Amino acid sequence: MPAPEAQPAVLAGLVGDGVTPSLTPPMHMAEARAQGLAYVYRPIDLPGLGLRPEQLPEVLDWAERLGFTALNITHPCKRAVLELLDRVDPVAAALGAVNTVLFTPEGRAGFNTDTTGFAAAFRAGLPGAALGHVTQLGAGGAGSAVADALLRLGARRLTLVDIDPGRATALAAELAERHGARVEPASPAGVAEALAHSDGLVHCTPRGMRAHPGAPIDLGLLRPGLWVADIVYRPLDTELLRAARSLGCATLDGGGMAVFQAVDAFRLITGREADPARMLRSFRSLIDLETHPHD
Amino acid sequence: MPAPEAQPAVLAGLVGDGVTPSLTPPMHMAEARAQGLAYVYRPIDLPGLGLRPEQLPEVLDWAERLGFTALNITHPCKRAVLELLDRVDPVAAALGAVNTVLFTPEGRAGFNTDTTGFAAAFRAGLPGAALGHVTQLGAGGAGSAVADALLRLGARRLTLVDIDPGRATALAAELAERHGARVEPASPAGVAEALAHSDGLVHCTPRGMRAHPGAPIDLGLLRPGLWVADIVYRPLDTELLRAARSLGCATLDGGGMAVFQAVDAFRLITGREADPARMLRSFRSLIDLETHPHD
Repeated sequence: MPAPEAQPAVLAGLVGDGVTPSLTPPMHMAEARAQGLAYVYRPIDLPGLGLRPEQLPEVLDWAERLGFTALNITHPCKRAVLELLDRVDPVAAALGAVNTVLFTPEGRAGFNTDTTGFAAAFRAGLPGAALGHVTQLGAGGAGSAVADALLRLGARRLTLVDIDPGRATALAAELAERHGARVEPASPAGVAEALAHSDGLVHCTPRGMRAHPGAPIDLGLLRPGLWVADIVYRPLDTELLRAARSLGCATLDGGGMAVFQAVDAFRLITGREADPARMLRSFRSLIDLETHPHD
Repeated sequence: MPAPEAQPAVLAGLVGDGVTPSLTPPMHMAEARAQGLAYVYRPIDLPGLGLRPEQLPEVLDWAERLGFTALNITHPCKRAVLELLDRVDPVAAALGAVNTVLFTPEGRAGFNTDTTGFAAAFRAGLPGAALGHVTQLGAGGAGSAVADALLRLGARRLTLVDIDPGRATALAAELAERHGARVEPASPAGVAEALAHSDGLVHCTPRGMRAHPGAPIDLGLLRPGLWVADIVYRPLDTELLRAARSLGCATLDGGGMAVFQAVDAFRLITGREADPARMLRSFRSLIDLETHPHD
């Protein structure tokens, strides 16, 4: 018989602010269960534990000591974690943000699966979508990863819209330099003009989440032929996506990025391929459970 | 379908000195796997991590923060851990030693499954053994738990032998008071006299372990009719047990206590019954693997 000790066992955590309701831990564990892999994945909510973001070094030290295989890292620690690592993957280093840390015998290695996850979700959910000109709403942390992914996917021109003009300008300059692409900042007043020439629209602000209901733009600016991607996933079906679908637009909901960042992290953490379709089903059943807890 | 998040997931650790090769983590994980329970159990070796026993409070704090369900605690921390708990089970409190800590919403609770584990192993492995007078070799930490179990099992008279007369005397006095039983200390020179009147012999010193080969007493003192229990389990088959078997004595090897302390800890940690026969098979296959790694 195979010795019990020969079975691998994986321990991971998600460190950040407000991570307790995250669907990433149960998604990873459901995939591991389906593969027969012993895997425990814990949310580690800093404010809930009375920990400040400045205590991130302690969190990493203790997680490593207590046998964690890896940590996912989210807001507000994705940048701060960089200096605590021994090695950073080039995609994460270029982005200046890490969301996955592996504790290895050769030291700590950092990766960014937000970027690779959005790219994979896009390829799977909007195959063949035109990338001549894309307008993106939101230039924050998630927006940085998504914009980076769009340019890696081959977007030739990207208009970055943010209510904070300084943020849009800084990110546009950074991305233009990194990718040698045409990236221009715009204010919300410039959305109509940008969309008129765009192939697609990507939404990366909190608008449309349950706590921030509504649409991020005047929905009258949508038109048939435009593809529309949203990264909001609570709810999966946002006002923006509903309006786009009613016009016949191809759409991608926020579940794709949530699932594919987890698919990529699962591969890094466990060394095994996850089944994206199965993880998507887990994700949808978890979301359904939140929406209809008594069904 | 059942929601992935409805599946329980258990995270445990074993804290102490030299715990890396312990068979307790793989035994727990094998039982959990057989039950379809997501369970990761990590050895947390203090000296290997550059941690001093005085840092036990930090270890417990961080294990609790990072989502551990429970910790097993071993040498040299079984006594020191008491003051870090909110609630101590009466058996453990009487013994002054805790080997299992549960992190619960109501605080930290401590238990001792060395005592209950030896008692269960004894009942299973030496059913009906006479307990009129028992001689025990070794009055250290393991010896304290075993002696306590023997008196709970109904031993009417116990002779405690230790090379340190003060240790034997102190433990004898403590046990006599706690259990209202006849417990007397003896030096190694007194073993022959004690064994002449004993129903059974229990061995709780390191003698017979691979690093301390040999027998703990003159094997000529054994006689048919005496039962003999050893708590050494590396190797399972000690010189003492071989000599006893050759005389036709009933014997109990150290695997019983190792397995049943884990059976009891598994129940406390997971809230599920373990299958003792299955855990014993896991234990034996792990021991075999150590002895014959290439079979």
